[in-house]
Amino acid sequence: MKGQWDVKLLLLEGPTDISFFAPLLKKVYGFREAPKDLHDKIPLGKNFENPQSSPLSRPICLVKDNQAVVMFHVGGKDRLSKALKLVISSLHIWEEHFRPNLIGVARDIDTEHDVVNWARNVLSSFNPVERDGALVVNDVEVVPFGIGSVEINNPNVYEKKELELLLTALAEKESTLSQFERSLNQLKEDAQRRLKPKDVMHVLAIAKDYDGDSMSGLYRKFVEKLINEKPELIEGLLRESGLKEFLDRITG
Amino acid sequence: MKGQWDVKLLLLEGPTDISFFAPLLKKVYGFREAPKDLHDKIPLGKNFENPQSSPLSRPICLVKDNQAVVMFHVGGKDRLSKALKLVISSLHIWEEHFRPNLIGVARDIDTEHDVVNWARNVLSSFNPVERDGALVVNDVEVVPFGIGSVEINNPNVYEKKELELLLTALAEKESTLSQFERSLNQLKEDAQRRLKPKDVMHVLAIAKDYDGDSMSGLYRKFVEKLINEKPELIEGLLRESGLKEFLDRITG
Repeated sequence: MKGQWDVKLLLLEGPTDISFFAPLLKKVYGFREAPKDLHDKIPLGKNFENPQSSPLSRPICLVKDNQAVVMFHVGGKDRLSKALKLVISSLHIWEEHFRPNLIGVARDIDTEHDVVNWARNVLSSFNPVERDGALVVNDVEVVPFGIGSVEINNPNVYEKKELELLLTALAEKESTLSQFERSLNQLKEDAQRRLKPKDVMHVLAIAKDYDGDSMSGLYRKFVEKLINEKPELIEGLLRESGLKEFLDRITG
Repeated sequence: MKGQWDVKLLLLEGPTDISFFAPLLKKVYGFREAPKDLHDKIPLGKNFENPQSSPLSRPICLVKDNQAVVMFHVGGKDRLSKALKLVISSLHIWEEHFRPNLIGVARDIDTEHDVVNWARNVLSSFNPVERDGALVVNDVEVVPFGIGSVEINNPNVYEKKELELLLTALAEKESTLSQFERSLNQLKEDAQRRLKPKDVMHVLAIAKDYDGDSMSGLYRKFVEKLINEKPELIEGLLRESGLKEFLDRITG
Protein backbone atom coordinates (compact mmCIF):
# COMPACT_ATOMS: atom_id res chain seq x y z
CA MET A 1 0.00 0.00 0.00
CA LYS A 2 1.54 3.32 -1.06
CA GLY A 3 -1.25 5.75 -0.07
CA GLN A 4 -0.87 8.44 2.56
CA TRP A 5 -0.99 7.15 6.11
CA ASP A 6 -2.16 9.04 9.18
CA VAL A 7 0.62 7.92 11.54
CA LYS A 8 0.72 8.67 15.25
CA LEU A 9 3.34 7.53 17.72
CA LEU A 10 2.73 6.57 21.30
CA LEU A 11 5.77 6.59 23.57
CA LEU A 12 5.33 4.58 26.76
CA GLU A 13 7.49 3.83 29.76
CA GLY A 14 7.59 0.05 29.78
CA PRO A 15 6.08 -3.24 28.62
CA THR A 16 3.47 -2.95 31.36
CA ASP A 17 2.04 0.09 29.60
CA ILE A 18 1.88 -1.76 26.30
CA SER A 19 -0.16 -4.46 28.06
CA PHE A 20 -2.63 -1.79 29.08
CA PHE A 21 -2.83 0.38 25.97
CA ALA A 22 -2.84 -2.34 23.30
CA PRO A 23 -6.13 -3.96 24.39
CA LEU A 24 -7.79 -0.54 24.66
CA LEU A 25 -6.73 0.46 21.16
CA LYS A 26 -7.76 -2.90 19.77
CA LYS A 27 -10.99 -3.64 21.53
CA VAL A 28 -12.34 -0.17 22.30
CA TYR A 29 -11.02 1.74 19.29
CA GLY A 30 -11.14 -1.07 16.73
CA PHE A 31 -7.46 -1.21 15.76
CA ARG A 32 -5.70 -4.41 14.80
CA GLU A 33 -2.10 -5.60 14.48
CA ALA A 34 -0.49 -4.21 11.34
CA PRO A 35 0.74 -6.57 8.63
CA LYS A 36 4.48 -7.16 8.52
CA ASP A 37 5.16 -4.87 5.54
CA LEU A 38 3.91 -1.91 7.55
CA HIS A 39 6.08 -2.88 10.51
CA ASP A 40 9.01 -2.80 8.12
CA LYS A 41 8.32 0.87 7.41
CA ILE A 42 9.12 1.82 10.99
CA PRO A 43 12.71 3.07 10.87
CA LEU A 44 13.34 2.96 14.63
CA GLY A 45 13.72 0.30 17.29
CA LYS A 46 14.95 -2.42 14.96
CA ASN A 47 17.65 -3.36 17.38
CA PHE A 48 15.92 -6.54 18.52
CA GLU A 49 19.11 -8.36 19.49
CA ASN A 50 19.98 -5.92 22.20
CA PRO A 51 17.04 -3.67 23.05
CA GLN A 52 18.91 -2.44 26.14
CA SER A 53 21.22 -0.43 23.96
CA SER A 54 18.48 1.76 22.48
CA PRO A 55 15.88 3.83 24.27
CA LEU A 56 13.35 2.63 21.70
CA SER A 57 12.55 -1.04 21.80
CA ARG A 58 10.60 -3.28 19.47
CA PRO A 59 7.69 -1.22 18.13
CA ILE A 60 4.10 -2.42 18.00
CA CYS A 61 2.06 -1.09 15.11
CA LEU A 62 -1.74 -1.09 15.14
CA VAL A 63 -3.87 -0.01 12.19
CA LYS A 64 -7.43 0.93 11.30
CA ASP A 65 -8.28 2.07 7.77
CA ASN A 66 -5.49 4.52 6.86
CA GLN A 67 -4.60 5.23 10.47
CA ALA A 68 -1.57 3.74 12.18
CA VAL A 69 -0.59 3.96 15.85
CA VAL A 70 3.00 2.94 16.50
CA MET A 71 3.71 2.16 20.14
CA PHE A 72 7.19 2.07 21.63
CA HIS A 73 8.14 1.39 25.17
CA VAL A 74 11.40 2.96 26.08
CA GLY A 75 12.45 0.87 29.08
CA GLY A 76 11.68 3.17 31.98
CA LYS A 77 10.54 6.68 32.77
CA ASP A 78 14.09 8.02 32.89
CA ARG A 79 14.54 7.21 29.22
CA LEU A 80 11.32 8.83 28.07
CA SER A 81 12.83 12.29 27.58
CA LYS A 82 15.80 10.92 25.63
CA ALA A 83 13.48 8.84 23.45
CA LEU A 84 11.19 11.80 22.77
CA LYS A 85 14.09 13.98 21.69
CA LEU A 86 15.47 11.18 19.52
CA VAL A 87 12.11 10.70 17.79
CA ILE A 88 11.66 14.44 17.19
CA SER A 89 15.10 14.83 15.69
CA SER A 90 14.81 11.80 13.41
CA LEU A 91 11.39 12.41 11.82
CA HIS A 92 13.07 12.92 8.44
CA ILE A 93 14.13 9.26 8.28
CA TRP A 94 10.48 8.11 8.00
CA GLU A 95 9.14 7.68 4.48
CA GLU A 96 7.05 10.72 3.64
CA HIS A 97 3.77 8.87 3.22
CA PHE A 98 4.32 7.11 6.55
CA ARG A 99 5.62 9.94 8.70
CA PRO A 100 4.14 10.62 12.15
CA ASN A 101 2.12 13.82 12.54
CA LEU A 102 1.53 13.42 16.27
CA ILE A 103 3.52 11.95 19.15
CA GLY A 104 1.69 10.96 22.31
CA VAL A 105 3.87 10.58 25.39
CA ALA A 106 2.23 8.84 28.33
CA ARG A 107 4.01 8.62 31.67
CA ASP A 108 3.06 7.88 35.25
CA ILE A 109 2.28 11.13 37.01
CA ASP A 110 4.07 10.13 40.24
CA THR A 111 4.97 13.47 41.80
CA GLU A 112 5.09 15.38 38.48
CA HIS A 113 1.73 17.09 38.58
CA ASP A 114 2.21 19.07 35.39
CA VAL A 115 3.26 16.72 32.61
CA VAL A 116 2.88 19.44 29.98
CA ASN A 117 5.48 21.42 31.87
CA TRP A 118 7.69 18.34 32.01
CA ALA A 119 7.40 17.92 28.23
CA ARG A 120 8.06 21.63 27.71
CA ASN A 121 11.33 21.27 29.60
CA VAL A 122 12.30 18.15 27.68
CA LEU A 123 11.64 19.88 24.36
CA SER A 124 12.98 23.31 25.26
CA SER A 125 15.85 23.16 22.75
CA PHE A 126 13.30 22.68 19.93
CA ASN A 127 11.40 25.88 20.84
CA PRO A 128 7.95 24.27 20.90
CA VAL A 129 4.78 26.31 20.41
CA GLU A 130 1.86 25.46 22.69
CA ARG A 131 -1.57 24.70 21.26
CA ASP A 132 -4.53 22.95 22.98
CA GLY A 133 -2.41 21.22 25.63
CA ALA A 134 0.04 20.04 22.98
CA LEU A 135 3.52 21.24 22.07
CA VAL A 136 4.08 21.79 18.38
CA VAL A 137 7.58 21.18 17.01
CA ASN A 138 8.23 21.25 13.24
CA ASP A 139 4.51 20.80 12.46
CA VAL A 140 4.34 17.73 14.69
CA GLU A 141 2.14 17.79 17.75
CA VAL A 142 3.55 16.34 20.96
CA VAL A 143 0.71 15.41 23.32
CA PRO A 144 1.86 14.62 26.86
CA PHE A 145 -0.37 12.58 29.13
CA GLY A 146 -0.09 11.81 32.83
CA ILE A 147 -1.23 8.33 33.88
CA GLY A 148 -2.81 7.89 37.28
CA SER A 149 -5.30 10.71 37.61
CA VAL A 150 -8.11 8.90 39.38
CA GLU A 151 -9.40 8.70 42.93
CA ILE A 152 -10.19 5.49 44.71
CA ASN A 153 -10.92 6.55 48.31
CA ASN A 154 -9.79 3.32 49.90
CA PRO A 155 -8.27 3.76 53.37
CA ASN A 156 -5.94 0.79 52.84
CA VAL A 157 -4.43 2.10 49.63
CA TYR A 158 -1.98 4.91 49.08
CA GLU A 159 -3.00 6.70 45.87
CA LYS A 160 0.31 6.56 44.08
CA LYS A 161 -0.36 8.12 40.70
CA GLU A 162 0.73 5.39 38.31
CA LEU A 163 -0.75 2.91 35.86
CA GLU A 164 -1.58 0.46 38.63
CA LEU A 165 -3.82 3.06 40.27
CA LEU A 166 -6.05 2.95 37.19
CA LEU A 167 -6.17 -0.84 37.44
CA THR A 168 -6.90 -0.55 41.16
CA ALA A 169 -9.82 1.73 40.29
CA LEU A 170 -11.04 -0.88 37.80
CA ALA A 171 -10.74 -3.65 40.38
CA GLU A 172 -12.79 -1.50 42.72
CA LYS A 173 -15.50 -0.82 40.14
CA GLU A 174 -15.57 -4.50 39.34
CA SER A 175 -16.02 -5.29 43.08
CA THR A 176 -12.91 -7.45 43.52
CA LEU A 177 -11.60 -4.90 45.99
CA SER A 178 -14.69 -4.97 48.18
CA GLN A 179 -14.61 -8.77 48.13
CA PHE A 180 -10.99 -8.64 49.33
CA GLU A 181 -11.38 -5.59 51.55
CA ARG A 182 -10.58 -7.48 54.75
CA SER A 183 -7.50 -8.99 53.11
CA LEU A 184 -6.32 -5.55 52.03
CA ASN A 185 -6.83 -4.27 55.53
CA GLN A 186 -4.94 -7.17 57.07
CA LEU A 187 -2.10 -6.87 54.55
CA LYS A 188 -1.81 -3.19 55.43
CA GLU A 189 -1.60 -4.15 59.12
CA ASP A 190 1.00 -6.86 58.52
CA ALA A 191 3.08 -4.74 56.15
CA GLN A 192 2.77 -1.82 58.56
CA ARG A 193 2.16 0.61 55.73
CA ARG A 194 -0.59 1.58 53.35
CA LEU A 195 -0.64 -0.59 50.25
CA LYS A 196 0.59 0.82 46.97
CA PRO A 197 -1.40 0.21 43.78
CA LYS A 198 1.27 -2.37 42.81
CA ASP A 199 0.54 -4.25 46.04
CA VAL A 200 -3.15 -4.26 45.16
CA MET A 201 -2.21 -5.87 41.84
CA HIS A 202 -0.72 -8.81 43.74
CA VAL A 203 -4.01 -9.25 45.57
CA LEU A 204 -5.77 -9.06 42.22
CA ALA A 205 -3.48 -11.87 40.99
CA ILE A 206 -4.67 -14.04 43.87
CA ALA A 207 -8.30 -13.03 43.34
CA LYS A 208 -8.09 -13.93 39.66
CA ASP A 209 -6.09 -17.12 40.30
CA TYR A 210 -3.46 -15.77 37.90
CA ASP A 211 -0.50 -18.11 37.36
CA GLY A 212 1.71 -16.19 34.93
CA ASP A 213 5.19 -14.88 35.62
CA SER A 214 4.62 -11.27 34.56
CA MET A 215 2.29 -8.82 36.23
CA SER A 216 1.74 -7.11 32.87
CA GLY A 217 0.21 -10.36 31.60
CA LEU A 218 -2.33 -10.08 34.41
CA TYR A 219 -3.10 -6.47 33.47
CA ARG A 220 -3.70 -7.41 29.85
CA LYS A 221 -6.02 -10.29 30.71
CA PHE A 222 -7.90 -8.21 33.28
CA VAL A 223 -8.47 -5.30 30.88
CA GLU A 224 -9.42 -7.58 27.96
CA LYS A 225 -11.95 -9.46 30.06
CA LEU A 226 -13.54 -6.27 31.35
CA ILE A 227 -13.77 -4.77 27.87
CA ASN A 228 -15.65 -7.87 26.78
CA GLU A 229 -17.82 -8.39 29.81
CA LYS A 230 -18.29 -4.97 31.44
CA PRO A 231 -17.41 -2.31 28.87
CA GLU A 232 -19.27 0.34 30.89
CA LEU A 233 -16.61 0.05 33.63
CA ILE A 234 -13.84 0.63 31.12
CA GLU A 235 -15.68 3.59 29.61
CA GLY A 236 -16.13 5.09 33.08
CA LEU A 237 -12.42 4.74 33.81
CA LEU A 238 -11.42 6.24 30.47
CA ARG A 239 -13.56 9.30 31.17
CA GLU A 240 -12.49 9.81 34.79
CA SER A 241 -8.77 9.39 34.15
CA GLY A 242 -8.63 11.68 31.10
CA LEU A 243 -7.57 8.71 29.01
CA LYS A 244 -10.57 9.01 26.70
CA GLU A 245 -9.60 12.50 25.60
CA PHE A 246 -5.97 11.39 25.10
CA LEU A 247 -6.83 8.23 23.17
CA ASP A 248 -9.40 10.09 21.06
CA ARG A 249 -6.61 12.41 20.03
CA ILE A 250 -4.17 9.55 19.32
CA THR A 251 -6.76 7.80 17.20
CA GLY A 252 -8.55 10.89 15.83
CA MET B 1 41.07 -22.67 26.05
CA LYS B 2 41.33 -26.07 24.33
CA GLY B 3 41.61 -28.38 27.35
CA GLN B 4 39.03 -30.99 28.26
CA TRP B 5 35.92 -29.61 29.88
CA ASP B 6 33.64 -31.37 32.34
CA VAL B 7 30.32 -30.25 30.85
CA LYS B 8 26.94 -30.88 32.42
CA LEU B 9 23.57 -29.74 31.11
CA LEU B 10 20.65 -28.65 33.21
CA LEU B 11 17.27 -28.67 31.46
CA LEU B 12 14.63 -26.56 33.20
CA GLU B 13 10.99 -25.77 32.55
CA GLY B 14 10.99 -22.00 32.36
CA PRO B 15 12.76 -18.71 33.09
CA THR B 16 11.46 -18.86 36.66
CA ASP B 17 13.60 -21.92 37.25
CA ILE B 18 16.67 -20.16 35.89
CA SER B 19 16.04 -17.36 38.40
CA PHE B 20 16.16 -19.95 41.16
CA PHE B 21 19.00 -22.20 40.03
CA ALA B 22 21.44 -19.57 38.77
CA PRO B 23 21.94 -17.83 42.15
CA LEU B 24 22.38 -21.21 43.87
CA LEU B 25 25.04 -22.33 41.42
CA LYS B 26 26.79 -19.00 41.62
CA LYS B 27 26.66 -18.14 45.27
CA VAL B 28 26.50 -21.54 46.94
CA TYR B 29 28.59 -23.57 44.48
CA GLY B 30 30.99 -20.85 43.37
CA PHE B 31 30.24 -20.82 39.64
CA ARG B 32 30.37 -17.67 37.53
CA GLU B 33 29.09 -16.58 34.11
CA ALA B 34 31.18 -18.11 31.35
CA PRO B 35 33.11 -15.86 28.96
CA LYS B 36 31.56 -15.36 25.54
CA ASP B 37 33.90 -17.75 23.71
CA LEU B 38 32.60 -20.62 25.82
CA HIS B 39 28.99 -19.61 25.13
CA ASP B 40 29.85 -19.84 21.46
CA LYS B 41 30.74 -23.52 21.90
CA ILE B 42 27.14 -24.36 22.78
CA PRO B 43 25.64 -25.69 19.54
CA LEU B 44 21.99 -25.48 20.63
CA GLY B 45 19.47 -22.76 21.37
CA LYS B 46 21.07 -20.13 19.17
CA ASN B 47 17.71 -19.20 17.77
CA PHE B 48 17.49 -15.95 19.72
CA GLU B 49 15.25 -14.16 17.24
CA ASN B 50 12.41 -16.57 17.73
CA PRO B 51 12.93 -18.72 20.80
CA GLN B 52 9.30 -19.90 20.55
CA SER B 53 10.20 -22.01 17.56
CA SER B 54 12.70 -24.17 19.43
CA PRO B 55 12.21 -26.14 22.62
CA LEU B 56 15.66 -24.96 23.71
CA SER B 57 15.99 -21.27 24.35
CA ARG B 58 18.96 -19.05 24.99
CA PRO B 59 21.43 -21.07 27.09
CA ILE B 60 23.16 -19.81 30.22
CA CYS B 61 26.63 -21.18 30.82
CA LEU B 62 28.27 -21.09 34.24
CA VAL B 63 31.84 -22.20 34.89
CA LYS B 64 34.19 -23.09 37.73
CA ASP B 65 37.71 -24.30 36.97
CA ASN B 66 37.27 -26.85 34.16
CA GLN B 67 33.63 -27.46 34.97
CA ALA B 68 30.77 -26.00 32.95
CA VAL B 69 27.05 -26.13 33.70
CA VAL B 70 24.90 -25.18 30.72
CA MET B 71 21.33 -24.32 31.65
CA PHE B 72 18.46 -24.26 29.20
CA HIS B 73 14.87 -23.50 29.87
CA VAL B 74 12.59 -25.11 27.40
CA GLY B 75 9.47 -22.95 27.70
CA GLY B 76 7.16 -25.14 29.74
CA LYS B 77 6.89 -28.59 31.22
CA ASP B 78 5.20 -30.01 28.15
CA ARG B 79 8.30 -29.32 26.10
CA LEU B 80 10.73 -30.91 28.53
CA SER B 81 10.45 -34.40 27.09
CA LYS B 82 10.93 -33.16 23.51
CA ALA B 83 13.95 -31.11 24.58
CA LEU B 84 15.51 -34.03 26.43
CA LYS B 85 15.17 -36.31 23.43
CA LEU B 86 16.55 -33.61 21.14
CA VAL B 87 19.59 -33.11 23.37
CA ILE B 88 20.27 -36.85 23.64
CA SER B 89 20.09 -37.37 19.90
CA SER B 90 22.31 -34.40 19.06
CA LEU B 91 25.22 -34.97 21.46
CA HIS B 92 27.53 -35.62 18.49
CA ILE B 93 27.25 -31.98 17.35
CA TRP B 94 29.11 -30.76 20.45
CA GLU B 95 32.87 -30.40 20.11
CA GLU B 96 34.50 -33.42 21.70
CA HIS B 97 36.37 -31.51 24.40
CA PHE B 98 33.16 -29.65 25.32
CA ARG B 99 30.62 -32.47 25.18
CA PRO B 100 28.16 -33.02 28.05
CA ASN B 101 28.64 -36.15 30.15
CA LEU B 102 25.57 -35.62 32.30
CA ILE B 103 22.13 -34.12 31.73
CA GLY B 104 20.11 -32.99 34.72
CA VAL B 105 16.39 -32.56 34.12
CA ALA B 106 14.50 -30.70 36.81
CA ARG B 107 10.73 -30.41 36.68
CA ASP B 108 7.95 -29.56 39.07
CA ILE B 109 6.66 -32.73 40.66
CA ASP B 110 2.99 -31.67 40.45
CA THR B 111 1.14 -34.98 40.45
CA GLU B 112 4.03 -36.97 38.94
CA HIS B 113 5.39 -38.61 42.05
CA ASP B 114 8.01 -40.70 40.29
CA VAL B 115 10.08 -38.46 38.04
CA VAL B 116 12.55 -41.26 37.33
CA ASN B 117 9.69 -43.23 35.88
CA TRP B 118 8.63 -40.19 33.86
CA ALA B 119 12.17 -39.88 32.44
CA ARG B 120 12.29 -43.63 31.75
CA ASN B 121 9.15 -43.29 29.63
CA VAL B 122 10.51 -40.26 27.81
CA LEU B 123 13.75 -42.07 27.00
CA SER B 124 12.29 -45.50 26.32
CA SER B 125 13.29 -45.49 22.64
CA PHE B 126 16.95 -45.03 23.66
CA ASN B 127 16.93 -48.16 25.88
CA PRO B 128 18.40 -46.47 28.95
CA VAL B 129 20.22 -48.43 31.65
CA GLU B 130 19.47 -47.45 35.24
CA ARG B 131 22.26 -46.64 37.68
CA ASP B 132 22.05 -44.78 41.00
CA GLY B 133 18.77 -43.03 40.22
CA ALA B 134 20.09 -42.00 36.81
CA LEU B 135 19.36 -43.30 33.34
CA VAL B 136 22.42 -43.99 31.22
CA VAL B 137 22.11 -43.49 27.47
CA ASN B 138 25.21 -43.68 25.23
CA ASP B 139 27.56 -43.18 28.21
CA VAL B 140 25.68 -40.04 29.23
CA GLU B 141 23.88 -39.95 32.56
CA VAL B 142 20.42 -38.44 32.65
CA VAL B 143 19.57 -37.38 36.20
CA PRO B 144 15.89 -36.49 36.70
CA PHE B 145 14.88 -34.35 39.63
CA GLY B 146 11.44 -33.48 40.99
CA ILE B 147 11.06 -29.94 42.34
CA GLY B 148 8.71 -29.36 45.24
CA SER B 149 9.48 -32.12 47.72
CA VAL B 150 9.15 -30.20 50.94
CA GLU B 151 6.53 -29.87 53.68
CA ILE B 152 5.32 -26.60 55.06
CA ASN B 153 2.39 -27.53 57.32
CA ASN B 154 0.52 -24.29 56.91
CA PRO B 155 -3.26 -24.66 57.08
CA ASN B 156 -3.76 -21.76 54.68
CA VAL B 157 -1.57 -23.18 51.95
CA TYR B 158 -2.21 -26.07 49.59
CA GLU B 159 1.09 -27.93 49.16
CA LYS B 160 1.25 -27.90 45.38
CA LYS B 161 4.56 -29.55 44.55
CA GLU B 162 6.26 -26.92 42.43
CA LEU B 163 9.16 -24.48 42.60
CA GLU B 164 7.09 -21.93 44.49
CA LEU B 165 6.56 -24.43 47.30
CA LEU B 166 10.31 -24.36 47.94
CA LEU B 167 10.20 -20.58 48.04
CA THR B 168 7.18 -20.74 50.33
CA ALA B 169 9.21 -22.98 52.66
CA LEU B 170 12.03 -20.43 52.58
CA ALA B 171 9.63 -17.58 53.35
CA GLU B 172 8.40 -19.62 56.29
CA LYS B 173 11.89 -20.33 57.61
CA GLU B 174 12.71 -16.68 57.21
CA SER B 175 9.56 -15.77 59.23
CA THR B 176 7.82 -13.66 56.56
CA LEU B 177 4.99 -16.16 56.56
CA SER B 178 4.39 -15.96 60.29
CA GLN B 179 4.47 -12.17 60.09
CA PHE B 180 1.79 -12.33 57.37
CA GLU B 181 -0.10 -15.31 58.79
CA ARG B 182 -3.28 -13.35 59.43
CA SER B 183 -3.14 -11.94 55.90
CA LEU B 184 -2.75 -15.43 54.46
CA ASN B 185 -5.68 -16.60 56.50
CA GLN B 186 -7.85 -13.68 55.39
CA LEU B 187 -6.85 -14.12 51.75
CA LYS B 188 -7.84 -17.77 51.99
CA GLU B 189 -11.22 -16.70 53.39
CA ASP B 190 -11.78 -14.06 50.72
CA ALA B 191 -10.62 -16.29 47.86
CA GLN B 192 -12.70 -19.14 49.30
CA ARG B 193 -9.93 -21.64 48.67
CA ARG B 194 -6.59 -22.62 50.11
CA LEU B 195 -3.74 -20.55 48.74
CA LYS B 196 -1.36 -22.07 46.23
CA PRO B 197 2.38 -21.53 46.59
CA LYS B 198 2.13 -19.04 43.69
CA ASP B 199 -0.42 -17.05 45.70
CA VAL B 200 1.99 -16.99 48.62
CA MET B 201 4.59 -15.50 46.27
CA HIS B 202 2.28 -12.53 45.69
CA VAL B 203 2.10 -11.98 49.42
CA LEU B 204 5.88 -12.23 49.54
CA ALA B 205 6.03 -9.51 46.84
CA ILE B 206 4.00 -7.22 49.12
CA ALA B 207 6.05 -8.18 52.19
CA LYS B 208 9.28 -7.40 50.34
CA ASP B 209 7.88 -4.23 48.73
CA TYR B 210 8.85 -5.70 45.36
CA ASP B 211 8.08 -3.44 42.39
CA GLY B 212 9.26 -5.46 39.40
CA ASP B 213 7.06 -6.82 36.63
CA SER B 214 8.21 -10.47 36.78
CA MET B 215 7.70 -12.81 39.68
CA SER B 216 10.92 -14.61 38.74
CA GLY B 217 12.78 -11.36 39.46
CA LEU B 218 11.39 -11.51 42.98
CA TYR B 219 12.50 -15.13 43.37
CA ARG B 220 16.02 -14.28 42.28
CA LYS B 221 16.34 -11.34 44.65
CA PHE B 222 14.83 -13.30 47.53
CA VAL B 223 17.18 -16.26 47.08
CA GLU B 224 20.26 -14.06 46.57
CA LYS B 225 19.53 -12.06 49.70
CA LEU B 226 19.02 -15.18 51.82
CA ILE B 227 22.22 -16.77 50.53
CA ASN B 228 24.08 -13.66 51.64
CA GLU B 229 22.33 -13.02 54.91
CA LYS B 230 20.99 -16.37 56.15
CA PRO B 231 22.88 -19.12 54.31
CA GLU B 232 21.84 -21.67 56.96
CA LEU B 233 18.21 -21.36 55.77
CA ILE B 234 19.24 -22.07 52.19
CA GLU B 235 21.35 -25.02 53.27
CA GLY B 236 18.41 -26.42 55.26
CA LEU B 237 16.11 -26.12 52.24
CA LEU B 238 18.66 -27.74 49.92
CA ARG B 239 18.91 -30.72 52.24
CA GLU B 240 15.19 -31.15 52.89
CA SER B 241 14.13 -30.84 49.27
CA GLY B 242 16.77 -33.21 47.87
CA LEU B 243 18.24 -30.33 45.89
CA LYS B 244 21.61 -30.64 47.59
CA GLU B 245 22.11 -34.17 46.34
CA PHE B 246 20.99 -33.16 42.84
CA LEU B 247 23.15 -30.04 42.65
CA ASP B 248 26.14 -31.89 44.09
CA ARG B 249 25.80 -34.30 41.21
CA ILE B 250 25.39 -31.52 38.61
CA THR B 251 28.48 -29.78 39.95
CA GLY B 252 30.46 -32.85 41.05
